[in-house]
Amino acid sequence: METEKIPKTAQELIESSKIAFLGSINDEGYPNIKAMLNIKTEGLKTIWFSTNTSSKRVSQFRKNSKACVYYVDDKKFMGLMLIGEIDVLQERAYREMLWKKGFERYYPLGMDDPDYTVLRFTTKWGNFYHGLSNINFEF
Amino acid sequence: METEKIPKTAQELIESSKIAFLGSINDEGYPNIKAMLNIKTEGLKTIWFSTNTSSKRVSQFRKNSKACVYYVDDKKFMGLMLIGEIDVLQERAYREMLWKKGFERYYPLGMDDPDYTVLRFTTKWGNFYHGLSNINFEF
Repeated sequence: METEKIPKTAQELIESSKIAFLGSINDEGYPNIKAMLNIKTEGLKTIWFSTNTSSKRVSQFRKNSKACVYYVDDKKFMGLMLIGEIDVLQERAYREMLWKKGFERYYPLGMDDPDYTVLRFTTKWGNFYHGLSNINFEF
Repeated sequence: METEKIPKTAQELIESSKIAFLGSINDEGYPNIKAMLNIKTEGLKTIWFSTNTSSKRVSQFRKNSKACVYYVDDKKFMGLMLIGEIDVLQERAYREMLWKKGFERYYPLGMDDPDYTVLRFTTKWGNFYHGLSNINFEF
C-alpha cells in the first residue's frame, strides 16, 4: 500500500497521545510492553523515546532490536501499530536533541547522565484501524 | 517473591481498566500489541479475552503461545505487566462463560459463531510499578 493512503487521523492519533506503548522481546522470547512518554515523532516513520540506560528495555533492545510501538484512542475506537527496529543511542547529539525541561527528574546528572539513553524506533510497516476500517501500510 | 506481597493497587488497576494491552509475537519474531476489552479476570493469574477466530492474534497464538498483558494508569503513574501463555479455546463452555450482552456486534451468529474465539491468558510472572516502587512477582 502507498504511504500517502495512510489517513490523517493516524498522524493525529500520534500527536494527541501522551503515551505510546513500546513492545520488546525478552531473553525467554516473550513479548514485553511498557508505557512510554510520547515526546518526539517524525511522521509515522521515526519515533523517539528516552529511557534509563540501566532499564530492562535497553538490555533487551541491545540483544534484539525487533520492536513495536502502539497508540490507541479507545473512545474513538482507533489504534495504530507500528512494527520496526530500535536503535539504542548515547551520542551527545541525540541526547541534546531529545532533552526536555524536567528530564532532571529522570536523569539527575543532566544531559550527560550515563543513565540517560535515547531510543530511536524506525517503522517498517504498520496497521491502523478506525471503527471498521483497517489498513496496512509499508515504508 | 510471595504472591501475597503484590499490592492491592495492582488488582484495583485491573478492575478499573476498560482496556488491556495484549502482546504477541508475529511470524517474523516481532512483538505485536493490541488493545483488548478487559472483560473477565480472576485475580492476577487468569485473564480472559474474546476475539475473532479470523484475527491475526489467533493465528499468532496458535503458533506461539508466549504473551504479555499490560494495564496502565498514566495519571497515577502505575503499570502492571503480566507475562505468560495464551490458550486459544473454542469449546462451548468457554464461549458461554465469556459471552456478554452486545457481543452480537462482534459475532453476528451468536454464541456458536465460528468466528468467536476465547483467549485464556495464564500469568507466570509479573511486574508492577507505582511511582518509584517497582516489584516483580511469580506465580
